[in-house]
Amino acid sequence: MEYKHHRYVPDGSVTTPKGFVAAAVAAGIKQSGKPDLVLVASERDCAAAGVFTRNQVAAAPVQVDRETLSGGVAIIRGVVINAGNANACTGEPGLADARDMCRLAAEATGAQFGQFLVMSTGVIGQPLPMEKVRAGISAAAAALSTEGGPAAAEAIMTTDTRPKRAAVAIDLPGGRVTIGGMAKGAGMIHPDMATLLGLLTTDAAIPAADLAPLLRRAADASFNAISIDGDTSTNDTVLVLANGASGVTVADDESRARFAAALEDLCVRLAQMIVRDGEGVTKFVTIRVTGAATADDARRVANTVATSPLVKTAFAGGDPNWGRIMMATGRSGATVDQRCLALWIATPDAAPLQLVRDGTPTGYAEADAAAIFAAPEFTVHVDLALGHGVATLWTADLTHDYVTINADYRT
Amino acid sequence: MEYKHHRYVPDGSVTTPKGFVAAAVAAGIKQSGKPDLVLVASERDCAAAGVFTRNQVAAAPVQVDRETLSGGVAIIRGVVINAGNANACTGEPGLADARDMCRLAAEATGAQFGQFLVMSTGVIGQPLPMEKVRAGISAAAAALSTEGGPAAAEAIMTTDTRPKRAAVAIDLPGGRVTIGGMAKGAGMIHPDMATLLGLLTTDAAIPAADLAPLLRRAADASFNAISIDGDTSTNDTVLVLANGASGVTVADDESRARFAAALEDLCVRLAQMIVRDGEGVTKFVTIRVTGAATADDARRVANTVATSPLVKTAFAGGDPNWGRIMMATGRSGATVDQRCLALWIATPDAAPLQLVRDGTPTGYAEADAAAIFAAPEFTVHVDLALGHGVATLWTADLTHDYVTINADYRT
Repeated sequence: MEYKHHRYVPDGSVTTPKGFVAAAVAAGIKQSGKPDLVLVASERDCAAAGVFTRNQVAAAPVQVDRETLSGGVAIIRGVVINAGNANACTGEPGLADARDMCRLAAEATGAQFGQFLVMSTGVIGQPLPMEKVRAGISAAAAALSTEGGPAAAEAIMTTDTRPKRAAVAIDLPGGRVTIGGMAKGAGMIHPDMATLLGLLTTDAAIPAADLAPLLRRAADASFNAISIDGDTSTNDTVLVLANGASGVTVADDESRARFAAALEDLCVRLAQMIVRDGEGVTKFVTIRVTGAATADDARRVANTVATSPLVKTAFAGGDPNWGRIMMATGRSGATVDQRCLALWIATPDAAPLQLVRDGTPTGYAEADAAAIFAAPEFTVHVDLALGHGVATLWTADLTHDYVTINADYRT
Repeated sequence: MEYKHHRYVPDGSVTTPKGFVAAAVAAGIKQSGKPDLVLVASERDCAAAGVFTRNQVAAAPVQVDRETLSGGVAIIRGVVINAGNANACTGEPGLADARDMCRLAAEATGAQFGQFLVMSTGVIGQPLPMEKVRAGISAAAAALSTEGGPAAAEAIMTTDTRPKRAAVAIDLPGGRVTIGGMAKGAGMIHPDMATLLGLLTTDAAIPAADLAPLLRRAADASFNAISIDGDTSTNDTVLVLANGASGVTVADDESRARFAAALEDLCVRLAQMIVRDGEGVTKFVTIRVTGAATADDARRVANTVATSPLVKTAFAGGDPNWGRIMMATGRSGATVDQRCLALWIATPDAAPLQLVRDGTPTGYAEADAAAIFAAPEFTVHVDLALGHGVATLWTADLTHDYVTINADYRT
């Protein structure tokens, strides 16, 4: 096992890295009256980067953040986030509201116009209640604190049942830096997942030009490995802010490699928290594809298997119905030779059980397969024996009545 | 409204056209002991055509039928069908079994080797119980009758709750011909639908070279308009047999047009029966897309909307959550300009209600929208205002607990 230069900080959040403060208030945007407006701010100027939904119906905050970050030299001081209203399909007035949120947050924290980013999640197509938002931003600015990270992670939740946050400390040649993060996901992890928001903060000093590819790679291996393509909701956004408050610069290759590994690890952990928090989820399943002709093909197969309702209901029913996995593989669009297909299933702590070899069943014992599918956590590994493309995705089962219909189907 | 030259025959089935016989027996393949083996045979040689799954993991019967029909001059006398075992992922022995089914059916009915097609549906990856199949084919051959159509439609069911069959009589310039048909579908109409089998019989005389494109076009407008791409299960197959027993030849353009319209109408009816028979279905929804840059784009949008679990749960919950429809449109892969999007919803017997204009809500009354979504049957119409691409798909709602989670989500 590879030696890791990072470890998780207990009770970590976006305010674990030095120089970050946060606050959450109930601005009255959520009908529930729960906290719904968050400010995360840095005492110092930050380099920033973002990855955004590829949905062509992009919400106003996504459009505004893209503009803000498009110059390449944006100096960012913080992020304003609201839950309860997505500010999507709101036309020009929605764009003006998103810009106003940035401006109000900058004014309230003593930053310059253009130094705040914005994220929104919630109902589509309704104008933001800007009076409430304005009052909420003022109240949040007055409450900013280095203890505010956990409350911020709570306030951005919509259908989530628990907050998702963590932080890692990394030992670099030049000293220790920290990355904190929080995310929100969806009730149901699926092609159509609800909005995914993620915010990462670090006290490392990193040029924005380096930060963007680091974030892209980490997001592809994490948040984009739990949805079908990372291009689903109108509002999906992951942002990272680097304020350099640790005094340690990520400049040499070794530092960059350690930082990248820790960032990816943290993003994977947050993404896996989203999967585990899916509504009704009882199984956490890793889909691993090897031997694909290309990496794209591997991801196609993994996506199709991971999002197939029939496969996911088989997971829930504890039914090692490998035929459904073969069927999903065959319709994935990847190049497949059914005579070469192999399939293993495994729990985290036991040897894999091979169910399929050369496209036909191995004669495994049904009880052994059922025991693995009965576990709360297992891996499904498909090998195509065509090339070197690999992919790993995380998914969950699909439970309830939807299952009753599909899980019992063996005529 | 266009004048139609065809009308539905009461209690129609695959034995409604002249010269076709059928029988269904319980061969013991289904664990339930219900009828599971079907022969449909013609007294005369038939021209035949088929459309098959595009899944790269294709079942043995699909591979065998493709071989049989690949020569272009196949003379077919019938089809043997079993339910309860898909004969998929069964390797070379499975191919031999599928060929044996064709041979046994031909022998039992006095036809030549190579004159029978085969379809299978059921569990994947188990060898066919060939002794039972052999006995079943003998018994079915002995029971062939012009009254056998309805029983055949029952026997091919798996998770279906009711048989799907119909027949149309068409007045051609040269006289009257009839097309009969039966189909089976899936418990859950979805990207991953279970196997779709369809068999169409006609007493018209049509060259096989004409039959193949007619079937392709009819299938695209029907069976392929209820699944995501028509390329889903390992076994999906639709076959047509034309025996000419009516003495009427479909040769001139007018006859061909009338025959094509009736064939498509029959296929659409059978396909819609499959949607309506989806497990837990309470709403039958037509997705209509217009103004797409291309026909492919229109189909992409319709597919994405029609198969989105979030959209389908909104249907079930009676929640006119147009934001989910916009989101699905935006992530469909089609070219979309969100500032041009328009959306209407309508029941079959009232004027459409426009929910979205220029990408933003129209200010419609929520109660009006809710009333339409409360209806058992309605249309969702998305216009992209970019070109002339159109598509129509049929889908259904997604009910039960899956809904409880998603249908209530308006924070």
